[in-house]
Amino acid sequence: MYSMLRWPLRLLSLSRSRESSVLSITQSKFFAESNMTKSALIILAPGAEEMEFTIAADVLRRAGVNVTVAGLNGSEPVKCSRDVVIVPDKSLEEALADEPYDVVVLPGGLGGSNAMGDSKAMGELLRSQESAGRLIAAICAAPTALAKHGIATGKTLTSYPAMKPQLVDKYCYVDDANVVQDGNLITSRGPGTAYEFALKISEQLAGTAKAQEVAKGMLLNFN
Amino acid sequence: MYSMLRWPLRLLSLSRSRESSVLSITQSKFFAESNMTKSALIILAPGAEEMEFTIAADVLRRAGVNVTVAGLNGSEPVKCSRDVVIVPDKSLEEALADEPYDVVVLPGGLGGSNAMGDSKAMGELLRSQESAGRLIAAICAAPTALAKHGIATGKTLTSYPAMKPQLVDKYCYVDDANVVQDGNLITSRGPGTAYEFALKISEQLAGTAKAQEVAKGMLLNFN
Ligand SMILES: [Cu+]
Repeated sequence: MYSMLRWPLRLLSLSRSRESSVLSITQSKFFAESNMTKSALIILAPGAEEMEFTIAADVLRRAGVNVTVAGLNGSEPVKCSRDVVIVPDKSLEEALADEPYDVVVLPGGLGGSNAMGDSKAMGELLRSQESAGRLIAAICAAPTALAKHGIATGKTLTSYPAMKPQLVDKYCYVDDANVVQDGNLITSRGPGTAYEFALKISEQLAGTAKAQEVAKGMLLNFN
Repeated sequence: MYSMLRWPLRLLSLSRSRESSVLSITQSKFFAESNMTKSALIILAPGAEEMEFTIAADVLRRAGVNVTVAGLNGSEPVKCSRDVVIVPDKSLEEALADEPYDVVVLPGGLGGSNAMGDSKAMGELLRSQESAGRLIAAICAAPTALAKHGIATGKTLTSYPAMKPQLVDKYCYVDDANVVQDGNLITSRGPGTAYEFALKISEQLAGTAKAQEVAKGMLLNFN
């Protein structure tokens, strides 16, 4: 009665060495470089898509990543796109004192993505992340925030389909993959691809075996 | 708000054959009976699985259902199983003043499920829901809370696989379906089946076309 669009196909066939996939242009070596606990900064902006936010935070914590949830505009509770109210761990301003993070994650949601695109602090964070070659991950509408800040221009990415017109001029846009990795940039399409997105980030930070273990515990496959 | 007399508590019609991953023993007629906005009460307990909670709340709101998020132990922020902190709309006690709800939804998570199973107020709510023939939906570990309160005994259900030993004696346990409906009881297995679970509830309350539309907006299929 139900199936993920292309679920078992693309991301799940994206694996480290087995295949050359157009979707994974280069592979990061974060995990190979160090066994230290990795860190993730997840931005929580007003109007964020709460499923994309929650899946990223939960899955990365299941993978043993040290996750900080940063409120874009402060540490007060944030009303998400469908009125779920989530309390960040701290404000983005506070979280910046603990830079660097191995990955900065931008959940989607139209309101949240617009707010991140308009935030000067986000622009600075993303530029510092990019120039140091650390991971940036954005899903759904959030790649438009990257575009507004001039991040990863020219790279290959995907997004929520309706955002494509805002992205095609600056990026090499992919329509037919749920998750796209181009070097230090990981992008994905929407709520229905959020598990895949979070597992792909987990794989980068904690390794393939850990991502597979986490997927299995959630009754999903990750190959 | 509308007549429950025609609700087929344990009717006969077997599942629609086109639904393969859902076992549907009886088919409810909520949507056919009334076009009024339907209501859902989603319980938010300490230790709830935040993805299962958030997906249920978000998807049902996308489907136009009037969702109330009730904190099991009050209206204060609730720390979920992977430390995501969510603010309920009101306490369960307050929410009970607005009974009845067309569906009561129990997200999983071990801590949350244990708390719901130990709560006297939950027991009363579930008994009132069951005796009126209204929908009860539980995912992951949450069916164990139904078992503790003696709800839906003898019905066909599923759960997170590890919970099976606690359920086989009281229920007809299904291993090989992501979502199981037996009359007014809808159950599901875990985070990886949470979209399916939420879409199935949405279908019951808002109709198949609406559930399909919501699925499509999330880049999922629901047939
Ligand atoms: Cu669970």
